[in-house]
Amino acid sequence: MRQPGPAPSGLAGIPAVSVLVTFVLHPQLAADTTVVAKLDLCRVLLMEDARYPWLILVPQLADLKDLHQVPSGHQAALWQEINQACTVLEQVTRPYKLNVAALGNQVPQLHIHIIARNPEDTAWPGPVWGVGKAQPYGEHNRAELIKQLSAALGTGTTAGE
Amino acid sequence: MRQPGPAPSGLAGIPAVSVLVTFVLHPQLAADTTVVAKLDLCRVLLMEDARYPWLILVPQLADLKDLHQVPSGHQAALWQEINQACTVLEQVTRPYKLNVAALGNQVPQLHIHIIARNPEDTAWPGPVWGVGKAQPYGEHNRAELIKQLSAALGTGTTAGE
Repeated sequence: MRQPGPAPSGLAGIPAVSVLVTFVLHPQLAADTTVVAKLDLCRVLLMEDARYPWLILVPQLADLKDLHQVPSGHQAALWQEINQACTVLEQVTRPYKLNVAALGNQVPQLHIHIIARNPEDTAWPGPVWGVGKAQPYGEHNRAELIKQLSAALGTGTTAGE
Repeated sequence: MRQPGPAPSGLAGIPAVSVLVTFVLHPQLAADTTVVAKLDLCRVLLMEDARYPWLILVPQLADLKDLHQVPSGHQAALWQEINQACTVLEQVTRPYKLNVAALGNQVPQLHIHIIARNPEDTAWPGPVWGVGKAQPYGEHNRAELIKQLSAALGTGTTAGE
């Protein structure tokens, strides 16, 4: 009979990995977005709706529903990355203002919307959710916006899925 | 001629006050809510809509529009108070989930909505903004909810305006 032994070499001392590996992006978020970057905590996604420059941040941790459930050891990173994404979206798209929201009534995996809003946009001054139909980006416009966002985030190239 | 002298006694060493005194709650927020508490950074307000237990946090700093404009020295307090308000609203009202959002398209003063949501509520699964008409609380129900929220926030009694 094999005796229980120590953990395999290379796995000791990195408990965070056991949390990270169980994260799987919700299929609805995957279907509606393109990956812009992977930051330390969050995956940064571009919503496929050319009516509003619209980022979605998803903390790469399993089983999170609401904002205040983010473990205390990850909260500072979350807020830092929300601030970073806001700053970058503002810098690249120069909107009138930003909307930031964690709703999650329809897609239960915790995700944070960061949306560039302008008085000329379709939904103004209301919120964007449920208003009309998403307008897909053209290939060139999507690629160009992701390139600019990714460069401003300091992640350089698209991280890919 | 009077010589310049030291600052009047009692004002030295508290520069934060010069920021705080310029804060004035936006009249629309004042009209739509009742004060629950004043935390170190934010005023905590109860939205006058009995369809959803709904708090609004307003950082008591002048001239803020978007979330990422909160000065770095106040950001940790903001996120801590958002977490605290989420935890308290959940504890007192036991909702299915929370919605947290900083929109501000109509009322430009930075304010953060924290809304208790349930699959039985009027707007579910959509966002609450712009859906139907607000339903006022009865006096007793409003007072009782504020008492419970205030106690859970550790502020005891209503702070008043």
